[in-house]
Amino acid sequence: MSKIVYVTRRERFNAAHKLWHEEWSAEKNLEVFGKCSNPNWHGHNYELFVTIKGPINEETGFCMDLKVLSTIIKSKVTDVIDHRNLNLDIPWMAGIKTSTENLAVVIWERIEQEIKEAGCQLHCVKLYETENNFVEYYGGE
Amino acid sequence: MSKIVYVTRRERFNAAHKLWHEEWSAEKNLEVFGKCSNPNWHGHNYELFVTIKGPINEETGFCMDLKVLSTIIKSKVTDVIDHRNLNLDIPWMAGIKTSTENLAVVIWERIEQEIKEAGCQLHCVKLYETENNFVEYYGGE
Amino acid sequence: MSKIVYVTRRERFNAAHKLWHEEWSAEKNLEVFGKCSNPNWHGHNYELFVTIKGPINEETGFCMDLKVLSTIIKSKVTDVIDHRNLNLDIPWMAGIKTSTENLAVVIWERIEQEIKEAGCQLHCVKLYETENNFVEYYGGE
Amino acid sequence: MSKIVYVTRRERFNAAHKLWHEEWSAEKNLEVFGKCSNPNWHGHNYELFVTIKGPINEETGFCMDLKVLSTIIKSKVTDVIDHRNLNLDIPWMAGIKTSTENLAVVIWERIEQEIKEAGCQLHCVKLYETENNFVEYYGGE
Amino acid sequence: MSKIVYVTRRERFNAAHKLWHEEWSAEKNLEVFGKCSNPNWHGHNYELFVTIKGPINEETGFCMDLKVLSTIIKSKVTDVIDHRNLNLDIPWMAGIKTSTENLAVVIWERIEQEIKEAGCQLHCVKLYETENNFVEYYGGE
Amino acid sequence: MSKIVYVTRRERFNAAHKLWHEEWSAEKNLEVFGKCSNPNWHGHNYELFVTIKGPINEETGFCMDLKVLSTIIKSKVTDVIDHRNLNLDIPWMAGIKTSTENLAVVIWERIEQEIKEAGCQLHCVKLYETENNFVEYYGGE
Repeated sequence: MSKIVYVTRRERFNAAHKLWHEEWSAEKNLEVFGKCSNPNWHGHNYELFVTIKGPINEETGFCMDLKVLSTIIKSKVTDVIDHRNLNLDIPWMAGIKTSTENLAVVIWERIEQEIKEAGCQLHCVKLYETENNFVEYYGGE
Repeated sequence: MSKIVYVTRRERFNAAHKLWHEEWSAEKNLEVFGKCSNPNWHGHNYELFVTIKGPINEETGFCMDLKVLSTIIKSKVTDVIDHRNLNLDIPWMAGIKTSTENLAVVIWERIEQEIKEAGCQLHCVKLYETENNFVEYYGGE
Repeated sequence: MSKIVYVTRRERFNAAHKLWHEEWSAEKNLEVFGKCSNPNWHGHNYELFVTIKGPINEETGFCMDLKVLSTIIKSKVTDVIDHRNLNLDIPWMAGIKTSTENLAVVIWERIEQEIKEAGCQLHCVKLYETENNFVEYYGGE
Repeated sequence: MSKIVYVTRRERFNAAHKLWHEEWSAEKNLEVFGKCSNPNWHGHNYELFVTIKGPINEETGFCMDLKVLSTIIKSKVTDVIDHRNLNLDIPWMAGIKTSTENLAVVIWERIEQEIKEAGCQLHCVKLYETENNFVEYYGGE
Repeated sequence: MSKIVYVTRRERFNAAHKLWHEEWSAEKNLEVFGKCSNPNWHGHNYELFVTIKGPINEETGFCMDLKVLSTIIKSKVTDVIDHRNLNLDIPWMAGIKTSTENLAVVIWERIEQEIKEAGCQLHCVKLYETENNFVEYYGGE
Repeated sequence: MSKIVYVTRRERFNAAHKLWHEEWSAEKNLEVFGKCSNPNWHGHNYELFVTIKGPINEETGFCMDLKVLSTIIKSKVTDVIDHRNLNLDIPWMAGIKTSTENLAVVIWERIEQEIKEAGCQLHCVKLYETENNFVEYYGGE
């Protein structure tokens, strides 16, 4: 079979962050970001679902070996940001507000190329901040 | 970044309903709707996922403030129908069979305009009736 | 092995109910029961966990055949109350307020004897009304 | 209303399988498939989500009666493969590697026609192998 | 009925913290606490289950009104620590290592008296740090 | 604080098995074990919750380092049986029916001593076979 399927791998990380605009006053930050602007940080158990797309390899029955996909996600993303502060500890988040929206986009950019080199196409990055809130990014503008 | 992302908010409500066609006999209702036609009602813990779509605001890192989205969903939908009877208590369900399909469509119509006014676009209403059954509506005919 | 173990079976049912004291005014009912007193009912997806206790049968490796336990729960409880109105349709709830507390106790009384006849001992009835609220009853006063 | 909606039904099955290429050595199988190549099998609690698409029937409020959809899925798929060995016991998996990818495609082919005859269109087969891994197939090449 | 039942309410909070012993070197902290000692914090979506125990009130069918229990938990615990830094922002955590174990004990001490005044008895504080780790405290030494 | 708390760690494994009594006919096995007696095996995603009990260490805030507990569970249990056949591949299950009840007891016996040597006390082994069925063992006869 050479049917096109979508394969998803879940990885998790726990991180601290705050939503804060450097050029705004504390009052303005509180007004816009609410309790997410707490100066001393808060944090989340993030759940990350990465979906790739591609044909099924006839010999293996795989679209992409999930051990490989897991290794890409861990080495490029979750091992780097797990138990870290997203605002302070992550060079590739410098200058970017650590909203779930921006995180999803940046995670896409971190893994897109390696997935392509593994012969597949990144389809979606889905990131849960809480059980009530999540963001999906499918690439592009 | 002005990337387009999809942002989802979950809200919940608990309601009574029955599936019942007024012009059918009790037997016909039972035949078509099975135990969902119990005259004295039954009920569910509904889980509602509302997904909006839009560019990321560079200043906030948000597509749409989830507090605003939550407020729209609550004021237009879940605060109105929570702990209610969908067939008897909700004027905007009058004359509409209270299937999960119809509920999803009506919920879309209730919130589409306010989300547009908040600068975003409603993308999907996903409604779980049980852990085994859910409906998605993406607008349009 | 004749070790004592605890075995749990989950069953589910969807029902309508309201919390209502017949001798109170509508205002008093609203004051005490809040939105749970809505005259036209509301409803839930209840999750029921029944735990039995007993030695492991050496021949089967079972404490109690879960098909038997499931059949007892269904025939005595969930098939009877699923898609029903707990206040109106269930003879053995007549005169009993349909709180999760009372439901758990009544369910215990409905299944205790049959489980004993099957050679085991009922240990706990755990009943979820929502993902945020549940009740456990271990028998006795 | 004749709006187009997507309706999903979840069914589950528990099965044994292994990933194994008959023409490869045990070493090669281990290298490619890792612990999934254990000669004596391993197994999973699979979760299957079948999504169909269609207009809402005005008389019933249904896109497709979920009892009918459930019956199709059970009779064609889950009753056949539940508590079975996917490599040994299922004629229609003969010669096909029992990856989640291939399973999703084969399940699609097993149910597409009956869903069409019921007046709806199969939209997606989503199959969870574990809480961390799942596959989606939307038909076509 | 005056049967004794156990009633549980779930509340949630998202907080930052680190595990850190002030009198140890950074190396010793890293050795003992691993990645939980990251100087710039990390965080979690905590899930808190509070279980109370008591007889069922015959008039209400309640052991304890869950709105009251929820209000106690929120006012004494979750509203105070949600979106905060457990090490820096919470006076009643000062000098106490912010392990899940200690948090569970401190939460017990924060709510025990008010639950007693509401006529019930606190039975268990169960606190999830992640989906894989949780702590239960039943009071006492 | 030297309060006694209960700490739980979840680990998972995927295994094949069948319920089969060697001295019974195939018919008798089918009669007693139903579809669980399928000769070619079936399998599950097992979820294992191990709960230990002990005082909180004042220096660390830990009852027992969860990395240590996780390592014990993995090395003695889940790494050994993950992606294996419980009837064929596991020496310490030889001659024992692979029911969830027996598995829970055997897992207890595999880890009790190492947990004691780590200074804590094993309190409960809880094993989910499916989302509907689980067993708890607290030690002893």
